[in-house]
Parts: sequence; C-alpha cells; structure tokens
Amino acid sequence: MTTDFGNGSPYVAAVKGVILALNPEVRIVDLSHDISPQDLRQAAFFLASTLPYYPPETLHVVVVDPGVGSQRSILYVEVAYVRLLVPDNGCWTWLLEGERRRMRVIRLTEKRFWRNRISATFHGRDIFAPVAANLSLGLDPRELGPIISDWVRLERPVPCHDAHSIIGEVLFVDRFGNLITNIPGEALLRDGRAKRVRIAGIEVSRIVRTYSDAEPGTLLALVSSSEFLEVAVNQGNAAQLLNAQTGTPVTLEYLPEA
Amino acid sequence: MTTDFGNGSPYVAAVKGVILALNPEVRIVDLSHDISPQDLRQAAFFLASTLPYYPPETLHVVVVDPGVGSQRSILYVEVAYVRLLVPDNGCWTWLLEGERRRMRVIRLTEKRFWRNRISATFHGRDIFAPVAANLSLGLDPRELGPIISDWVRLERPVPCHDAHSIIGEVLFVDRFGNLITNIPGEALLRDGRAKRVRIAGIEVSRIVRTYSDAEPGTLLALVSSSEFLEVAVNQGNAAQLLNAQTGTPVTLEYLPEA
Amino acid sequence: MTTDFGNGSPYVAAVKGVILALNPEVRIVDLSHDISPQDLRQAAFFLASTLPYYPPETLHVVVVDPGVGSQRSILYVEVAYVRLLVPDNGCWTWLLEGERRRMRVIRLTEKRFWRNRISATFHGRDIFAPVAANLSLGLDPRELGPIISDWVRLERPVPCHDAHSIIGEVLFVDRFGNLITNIPGEALLRDGRAKRVRIAGIEVSRIVRTYSDAEPGTLLALVSSSEFLEVAVNQGNAAQLLNAQTGTPVTLEYLPEA
Repeated sequence: MTTDFGNGSPYVAAVKGVILALNPEVRIVDLSHDISPQDLRQAAFFLASTLPYYPPETLHVVVVDPGVGSQRSILYVEVAYVRLLVPDNGCWTWLLEGERRRMRVIRLTEKRFWRNRISATFHGRDIFAPVAANLSLGLDPRELGPIISDWVRLERPVPCHDAHSIIGEVLFVDRFGNLITNIPGEALLRDGRAKRVRIAGIEVSRIVRTYSDAEPGTLLALVSSSEFLEVAVNQGNAAQLLNAQTGTPVTLEYLPEA
Repeated sequence: MTTDFGNGSPYVAAVKGVILALNPEVRIVDLSHDISPQDLRQAAFFLASTLPYYPPETLHVVVVDPGVGSQRSILYVEVAYVRLLVPDNGCWTWLLEGERRRMRVIRLTEKRFWRNRISATFHGRDIFAPVAANLSLGLDPRELGPIISDWVRLERPVPCHDAHSIIGEVLFVDRFGNLITNIPGEALLRDGRAKRVRIAGIEVSRIVRTYSDAEPGTLLALVSSSEFLEVAVNQGNAAQLLNAQTGTPVTLEYLPEA
Repeated sequence: MTTDFGNGSPYVAAVKGVILALNPEVRIVDLSHDISPQDLRQAAFFLASTLPYYPPETLHVVVVDPGVGSQRSILYVEVAYVRLLVPDNGCWTWLLEGERRRMRVIRLTEKRFWRNRISATFHGRDIFAPVAANLSLGLDPRELGPIISDWVRLERPVPCHDAHSIIGEVLFVDRFGNLITNIPGEALLRDGRAKRVRIAGIEVSRIVRTYSDAEPGTLLALVSSSEFLEVAVNQGNAAQLLNAQTGTPVTLEYLPEA
C-alpha cells in the first residue's frame, strides 16, 4: 500500500479492513502513507524509486487520487515485473521509462468485484481494496475490465542542457533535508572536467562520494542512491540551510579548462 | 493496534515485542498510532469508522488511555462482529449505536494473564499486550474476569435541529483538511428543498457529489465516505482556509421556497 | 526494522522490497522509522527500551547511520537474547549493560551477500537488507565476516550524585510531552526521606505513582515505565510547559530532616 492518507486518518485502516475481510491470509506491507497530499510528482518519484525492488508477485495498491469520484478511470497495470492498482492520473508512468516488456493495462469496469455501495470520495475502500483482495485470491485480471492502450501520462521534469551546463530542479526532499534532483548522477562523474554545482544562488562547495567525505556542516553534492545528483549537508539539513524545496532550480556547470 | 503513542516512541515497539514473544505467529496490523494524544472523541470516531470493516476474528487492541494507572478498568468487548481490548473510557461505545447483537463485556481482573510487574503508566505493554497474545492463542475470554453490564459511555455530540436548520460541529479533520461533521449526510440530500451550509461565518458556495465537481479552490459541501456532511476544498485545504478544527460549528439551513 | 528514515521517504519501502524479493515469506515488523534523524542517543534509548521484549529469533535491522559510506563497519551482533544488524556507531551498546551472555559481534565483510552495486549513501538497501534476508533464510552468521572484539561504544549520560542530590538530564521526550530522564526511578522511591525534583528552574509540585494521582494540569514526577524518573503533566504536555527537551538538566534533592 502506498497512499497520501496520512497515518492519523481512518482511511488507511478502513482499506486494510476491507482487504482482510475478503482475504484474511493476505500480507499487507505499508510502503508509505505519507506521500504529500495529492502530489502526483511525489508519488511518481516514490513509485519509481521503490516498486522495482519488490518481488513480482506483489500487487501494489496506490491511492494518491485527487480526481476521486470524477470520470477518471482506475487501472490495473503490469509493467516489467511490477503489478499495480492505481488511479489513471499518470503517477505510475515513470516506471515505463525504457520498459515495454510484459506491458498490460486494464481499466476497471466490472463492478461485481467492488463494494456494493460506492462512495464518491473513497474509492480506496470501495474499489481498490475489494479488487486487490480478489486479485490476491487468484482472480484473473482480465475479469476486471477491458485492456486499454491509452492512459494519462505524467511528464517527468527533464533537465535542460547545453555544452556547458545542465539546469535541473529538486525532485524530492527527504527527511534529512537532502535534495534529490532530476540531473543524472553520471553527469557529476563524467570525464575529467572541473564542475560546479549551484542551487538557490549558492555554490556548493564540495563534490564528494559520500556525506562524511566532507566536514560536518559542509554543503556538498554527490550521486544519490537513486543515481541522481543530490545536494546535502554532512550531519546537517540542506533544505533548511538553502530554504530549498521541490522545484528549486539546480545547475551543474562544466568549467572551462584554465 | 490502534494507539495514540505516535510512531517515534518506543511504546508501539514494546507492545509488539511483548505480543510476539508470547505468540510469534500472530499477525499484527497497524491501524493507527497517530490518534490525537488522549483524545477520546477522536479515538471514538476512528474506531466507529474502521473497526466494522475488519473480519470478525480480528482482536482490536486499542490503547488511548488518559486514565492509565488509575482505578479505571480494562475491558474485553464483543459488540456485533467486533472484538476489542480497550480502557473503560467509553471510546469504543459509538460502536454500540443500533447494535445489541452478540454483546459481551468482561472486566479484566485475572492477573495471571498479565506481565509479572505492572508499571503504573504503561498498561499497553504490561496488560493489553500479554492478554491480546493469550487470546490470539485461543484463551477463552471468560477466563479474563467477570462479565459486567455497566461501563463508561462517551456521548457522541448530537446535532440540534428544528424545522429550518441543523446545527452540528466538526468531528474530524483529515490530512487533506477535509472537515467531517456530525450532521448526517442524508440531510444534505433530503427532498428537493434548497439548502445552504455555513461554517465559521462563511457560506459554503457549492453542494456537490464529489470534490472535482467544483473548480479547484472552491469551498464545497458533500456527503463524506462515512456518510456525514463534509466541508472541503477541491485540491485545497478547508481546515486551513477556514481556520476550522474539531468542534467548529457547522449549520445546514433549509431555505424557504421562493 | 528501526530507522530514522521517516515514513514519507522511499527508503523504508526500498529496504522492505529488497528483503521481500529475497525472502517473500519473511515477516517484517516496523518498530519505528521516526527515530530523530541521525540521533544516536535517541536510537540507543529506543533500542534499550524495546528490543529485550522481542522473541530471541527476531533479527533487528537498525539503520540510524550518520556515517554511511565512510569506513565505519556494519555489525552483526548477538547480545543476551537479542540479534541485530547495526552500523558500528555504538547505538546498540546500551543493551550491553549487565550482559555478557551469548555475546558475539561479527563485522560484515563478505560482499557476496550484498547487492551487486553498493551506493555510497544507502547501505540500508544495499547491505543491511540482503544480509537480513539471507539470515532469515538460515544463513550462518559466521559466513558474514570475522568475529571482532572491539567496537564503538556510545556513552550513556550518567547522572552525578552526592549525598544530597542527583543531577541528571532528559533522555527522551515522548509524544505526550513526558520527559524521561536518566535518573534511576528507584532514587525517587528510596527510603522515607523527603525529596524535591527541579527541572528548568521550576520545582515539580507532586511526586506520584501515576499521572491521574494529581489534578489535571499538575506538574508531577513519577517512575517511568522504563524505570527512570519521569516528569509529566497529568492530561498536559510537560515538554511544552517547561520548554524542555533532550539534555535539559533535572535535579533530585534529598531534603534535610526538619
């Protein structure tokens, strides 16, 4: 389960209850319920960073759903070795990059697998949960509705680059205040040219391999564990220091050889 | 498990440890550990909104317990198809509404099922956890203590109404800032009369079926997934916009026919 | 799993995915992901307060790791009846107090049990997770690397005392604002001498057995469930009232007999 419901709300608990009532043997794993509310980019980053690690038999139930109750569809998706139930809002489509194997997308239309009464605001409980439970009991996904070939795509913000620089942005701020950008990490390592990283008008003083390669408190750039350029402070909080957030521009410049 | 311990404290982890040490095979499901601290109404709303979805074999361990260590009792309760261990503070009693089937309440008195040393401030670890583990291993609840017929009740705040209006209040604020009230949702749908919703001195501009029926940013009223009147902002946060919180009054007026 | 990753980040989910991909049958229990970021004392308090309750077959995966990517080692530890994987930063060493039974510490060196690519900043995913999964599948810990006899120790802050007083400090602030100190609880109960507790320049008005022994709102001292002196407010928040936090000094004075 991956949702933006928050841990204090009854929504997570209700979804788990409906699933367990239909399949008491199923194992539910909490990936996160703290995706930023209705933030599709955050959800997309999260899913692309985590779902590929799971075993292929996993069914991911993803409820980040600003369009709940509208005409938006709900999809069952198989992409590479990931299976998920997800609103048709594109938050899963970053998983598509470079992938075309085992691709299958089904639009949920068969109401006999849903709860009898469908609320207008909580499809997590009324549609996602009973469908997930049925799939965990062996239901063939083809029973859920028609295969479709068109769906909403969510653009991944692409960095701009020329011969001298790459301009990207912060994609995710983690709990430590580390800033993960959309600039490929390999750009930081490329060839022997001198480089400079700038963010929020400030030059990042060190380019390192890991946090502790610099003194505590030093602003530094490195390759993140998701293989993007990351700006951090050793034993500190870069987001607070720079007042940076998702969307803050970041520049990687290749310096002229002296 | 439903508690107000918070996810950062050792209390949740200690309770899980004691349960697993007695029954390593038991499955523990986290409903929430973020009930507002010692907030019985919040707990009552949460339990009434979620427990009925769970399979009847579930044992709910509920530790929201401002009276820990005092003379308050701990109860084992069966009501309809819900079983729970809960302090005798009334937070479970909203589950009673309209229910009298399979009702059984036992006061925990048999210390042989408790830990040997009982702290004055952490009965979750010292009483709830070992009793829950024993029940999961098949202990007959009648071994726990005497059946009782009197317990603390928690009043559900009831809306006032006359022929022209219903005055209720906000019962729960979810993570999206949606305001769930205690006014029955059916009152919003009733017959063909024109209606007006007011909260915090402001008139709610739209009465809709789901969030996205109004433009983003619009203040709206609708029937919540728990079937109460809900005030929300499409893609926004009504609690912040209105500076509203639990207890804020909400009025539904029936307008005179012009 | 005990980490400081936070519930919103992809890190928790990635670690779970890697473990489940190697052993889909393993049961993962979340102890906490909300340890204060990189706070080793907080982690040490948490581990000492919770791990001893778990069944001995549990493997605790602890990732609070400010030194990730540096030369710090990763350890497999058996102490008393607790087994854990933990960075060599001392956060587990409070478990050693009074214990020498079944002591075994192994330094992880055998990379064949790690992921193929090891990032510099996320050993939780790349080393801890696959090693944990392998151990859960029955791998003999001796395969992981050499037994060692030296490791980083984390000092537990020790209270100072003379014949008339004990000066300690706040070790942990829980979600209720209760202040758990490092002064042994028995010092509060000792013999019949009159005592006085002071914190942040304020005298604690009551010494009680449990919160509700004093009127709501009263500042009180009692023996915590972890058997240390605790300062609290019945139905209130002592941390907010006193503006106290981890490290705030606390004094227990023995009063002269009048």
